[in-house]
Amino acid sequence: MSTPDIHGIIGYTITPFSVDGEQLDLEALGLSIDRLIDSGVHAIAPLGSTGEGAYLSDSEWDRVCEFSIQHVAQRVPTIVSVSDLTTAKAVRRARYAQARGADVVMVLPASYWKLSESEILAHYQAIGSSIDLPIMLYNNPATSGTDMSPELILRIFNAVENVTMVKESTGDIQRMHRLQLLGEGQVPFYNGCNPLALEAFAAGAKGWCTAAPNLIAELNLALYAAVQANDLQQARALFYRQLPLLDFILKGGLPATIKAGLRSTGLKAGNPRLPVSALDDGACKQLQGLLDALS
Amino acid sequence: MSTPDIHGIIGYTITPFSVDGEQLDLEALGLSIDRLIDSGVHAIAPLGSTGEGAYLSDSEWDRVCEFSIQHVAQRVPTIVSVSDLTTAKAVRRARYAQARGADVVMVLPASYWKLSESEILAHYQAIGSSIDLPIMLYNNPATSGTDMSPELILRIFNAVENVTMVKESTGDIQRMHRLQLLGEGQVPFYNGCNPLALEAFAAGAKGWCTAAPNLIAELNLALYAAVQANDLQQARALFYRQLPLLDFILKGGLPATIKAGLRSTGLKAGNPRLPVSALDDGACKQLQGLLDALS
Amino acid sequence: MSTPDIHGIIGYTITPFSVDGEQLDLEALGLSIDRLIDSGVHAIAPLGSTGEGAYLSDSEWDRVCEFSIQHVAQRVPTIVSVSDLTTAKAVRRARYAQARGADVVMVLPASYWKLSESEILAHYQAIGSSIDLPIMLYNNPATSGTDMSPELILRIFNAVENVTMVKESTGDIQRMHRLQLLGEGQVPFYNGCNPLALEAFAAGAKGWCTAAPNLIAELNLALYAAVQANDLQQARALFYRQLPLLDFILKGGLPATIKAGLRSTGLKAGNPRLPVSALDDGACKQLQGLLDALS
Amino acid sequence: MSTPDIHGIIGYTITPFSVDGEQLDLEALGLSIDRLIDSGVHAIAPLGSTGEGAYLSDSEWDRVCEFSIQHVAQRVPTIVSVSDLTTAKAVRRARYAQARGADVVMVLPASYWKLSESEILAHYQAIGSSIDLPIMLYNNPATSGTDMSPELILRIFNAVENVTMVKESTGDIQRMHRLQLLGEGQVPFYNGCNPLALEAFAAGAKGWCTAAPNLIAELNLALYAAVQANDLQQARALFYRQLPLLDFILKGGLPATIKAGLRSTGLKAGNPRLPVSALDDGACKQLQGLLDALS
Repeated sequence: MSTPDIHGIIGYTITPFSVDGEQLDLEALGLSIDRLIDSGVHAIAPLGSTGEGAYLSDSEWDRVCEFSIQHVAQRVPTIVSVSDLTTAKAVRRARYAQARGADVVMVLPASYWKLSESEILAHYQAIGSSIDLPIMLYNNPATSGTDMSPELILRIFNAVENVTMVKESTGDIQRMHRLQLLGEGQVPFYNGCNPLALEAFAAGAKGWCTAAPNLIAELNLALYAAVQANDLQQARALFYRQLPLLDFILKGGLPATIKAGLRSTGLKAGNPRLPVSALDDGACKQLQGLLDALS
Repeated sequence: MSTPDIHGIIGYTITPFSVDGEQLDLEALGLSIDRLIDSGVHAIAPLGSTGEGAYLSDSEWDRVCEFSIQHVAQRVPTIVSVSDLTTAKAVRRARYAQARGADVVMVLPASYWKLSESEILAHYQAIGSSIDLPIMLYNNPATSGTDMSPELILRIFNAVENVTMVKESTGDIQRMHRLQLLGEGQVPFYNGCNPLALEAFAAGAKGWCTAAPNLIAELNLALYAAVQANDLQQARALFYRQLPLLDFILKGGLPATIKAGLRSTGLKAGNPRLPVSALDDGACKQLQGLLDALS
Repeated sequence: MSTPDIHGIIGYTITPFSVDGEQLDLEALGLSIDRLIDSGVHAIAPLGSTGEGAYLSDSEWDRVCEFSIQHVAQRVPTIVSVSDLTTAKAVRRARYAQARGADVVMVLPASYWKLSESEILAHYQAIGSSIDLPIMLYNNPATSGTDMSPELILRIFNAVENVTMVKESTGDIQRMHRLQLLGEGQVPFYNGCNPLALEAFAAGAKGWCTAAPNLIAELNLALYAAVQANDLQQARALFYRQLPLLDFILKGGLPATIKAGLRSTGLKAGNPRLPVSALDDGACKQLQGLLDALS
Repeated sequence: MSTPDIHGIIGYTITPFSVDGEQLDLEALGLSIDRLIDSGVHAIAPLGSTGEGAYLSDSEWDRVCEFSIQHVAQRVPTIVSVSDLTTAKAVRRARYAQARGADVVMVLPASYWKLSESEILAHYQAIGSSIDLPIMLYNNPATSGTDMSPELILRIFNAVENVTMVKESTGDIQRMHRLQLLGEGQVPFYNGCNPLALEAFAAGAKGWCTAAPNLIAELNLALYAAVQANDLQQARALFYRQLPLLDFILKGGLPATIKAGLRSTGLKAGNPRLPVSALDDGACKQLQGLLDALS
């Protein structure tokens, strides 16, 4: 198993629906993927939180997975989120993604019941042993309800051979420090908290997992480039420039805000599935104002 | 729509699986329902947290729902948990439960994304308008990730005609105080936090939603009887007697501990679905010790 | 050392100041103590949180301590709060209180820096070995910044001979459950969270430490009497009757609300010391409305 | 009023005591100040958290204040922490510091009771109007119990003329982002959380308030220099090098760890005042190991 070099700006895709919210709109999905790749993102990540993976039926999930991988067509690596509420279902999704050509799968320990550390480890082991792909472990207690300490993350990283990357979305920079110190610099970590982008890069994050490139790819990429060029002042200026938008999409919810933003650029992304509401008119205007200020 | 008088000890059922965890074991489910009713519980609640409703496929969920209602056969009221991740799926379950003869449906605003207050209200409105049954609103941020304040609960209670009962599982007794004061004594509330059973009754809870009667129905019922008899000293003594077991099943996780406890009494309940693990041997012995001390 | 039987309603006194906030008004203090005792409280506790002990100079503290003990004149037991920021200062206060005739001293591990468990234990040991009086250990992280788990409290209770009582003010009823279970019913605990009064008594609290008797002693005492009479329904009704006032004084801050309430009855209690503000006019009217509804 | 240009590494002094903990050791204080200045720190801050200001009597506080200012002798600016539990006492300290020649005073809204926003604002107004010096507002809920939101901080910054700097010690980098965005880049902010040093500088902090220079001034200064040189890679490397020590002194408590560290270099700093304990032998060895690794 060779791990592709995942780095930089990892763009998360939405899952467009028809107007009534019932049908998938794969054509719009293809357009949104093309935009992201054309803008220069370094990887594509379908079916994550932004992609409403949790709200899809199994057959919908399969179609989005297959279509996304085929449409990316290896222009950049594809990282498929395969989280599900039971281990059996997550294994099924992981195998499906591998069979369709995914480069990496991402696993959040989503569960209804709080999981113990040994339950979480067993979950990763079961998925890891069922596929040959590298796994990006994903910690996001705000959506999963399960918080993994840096110590637990390292335990899993060391115990499960194909867990080779860590996505940290708590927004707590000290978690990254601990991964770096305890992992002796050998644990590649990625930031999943948009308003932490500058500091995560400062602390050594290898990439930024974000839905923002759907709207402001140029700024996201410029921030990464400034960090690569070791130009902190430039990185700071670029970060503060995009921060109001990053705050807005975090606070407003990624599916609702990204879909609204795409719509304003002519891409028919539809609305999120209920109970998640579409942005109301006031928020749409606010978003448009933020986007106008950046263009 | 007439609301049945839901009160007292509301017994939550497990969902027994075959040994490999893949098949439903409806025969065992029937036995566990009979035990609960024979022991004297005042209502039966299938497919709740204890029933691993979140981990079932749609067809499994339907079969458990239908079987449970038929098997209870109106010996006591049946309260079916119909929560699901999207509004459309929750509506489908609510209608299904009504069609099969449920007396009440229970709704937890489960979601992957944090929901705003208006999104939660719309969710209840959509479900409420799709059925004619009374709805027990259920607040349990520890599993749903969504916390509803007493003020929001009252807003929903007042806005959605068939939301007529509130199950509060935060374990914060002040929430019940606020429901009582702000609702001017007109909002029937039920306790879903086992180690709060005594105080919730002291504060006026109309019932106790609990999986404990699968193991110690007699003690649960005696506590309720003491409260009904206005005998605080007796209630306190009964509560402290069963508290170590209540703490244990909360801490160990309801599906794992209740299934292990049932198994020790000869009922083949199977194990929880992964990633939730079965109790290990040490914990099983500890549970047995607690049960022996109460028998 | 014999421990007096501390139980029931333990009334906390304010520390009245002159209008400019600079001078002590011991005459008003004497009147407020007389009122409390005449109304029937079972003990008097000067210099607690309500008494603004933390805001007094050492000489002021000494004068209030001496005056209070002399004025109570053994009509009921006196429990003096001797907390201070350093161990040396707390020891000095404890000795002073003993020399003036206090029956019990109360100790909150107040500190600027977070204390480790061994530092907290050493603090209690140092105070305990410097006096012959019984000590009421006091846990209130909201004011002290230091939270003592039930396990730590029991460790101190067992290690320091004259720590013989526990005042719990977290408002978390499970703490009392743990004290009761782990202490095998041998640890007398007292409730310091006003809106938990009913449930703390239900759980077996021996007393209620409260400033409320300055304003509504009759209701506080009636609640205790109902519990003593094993009449839960009466206790519940009495509790909900006084709960709006209990919520108000907790939320508004005890020194400000109690002083305002006393003033409305003609007792010149002055204002709290800045930075704590006196109640504004709107809040005073709200308080008056609550008091009128109870009279 | 002209505000001195406070920036870079602001070194916090300890307050050395005699062996029995009772007497001040001003000679040792003078030596520690000289070391800090000779090592190159950009300002000296006596009587802060590290200086155990909260544990000194008024006369001790006055002596340390006067001595520190005289000993610094304007080699660098002196920033005196004047926090106290009442407004009157804090005003007294602020005036005293001004009279003795302090350049800046720092104010933490320390209080026993939780303060409302208007109480906090009034506290700063009272202190601000009593002196002519610039004030560094200090937010540290972990020690003060009072958390000031960025919005409140800006309200105070705008309302009180001589509040011209903000020290943020929550460790939450998003607070600094909000100060920068809401304050439109016009609010100088300083970092008081040691393990956030790298990211706070990345986010634009003007200085780092820290006791670490007592032990590793060279590394602290080198980090600042790398940031000034816009060399992010160097700053990151320097930060991770010193992070284990920064974590250790935060976790072990600043007075105990800094005093132990100074002692190992021959400076007789004494121990912290009880209830804060001196470092035990194991922790001293651990500290020595960390220091050896950096030398």
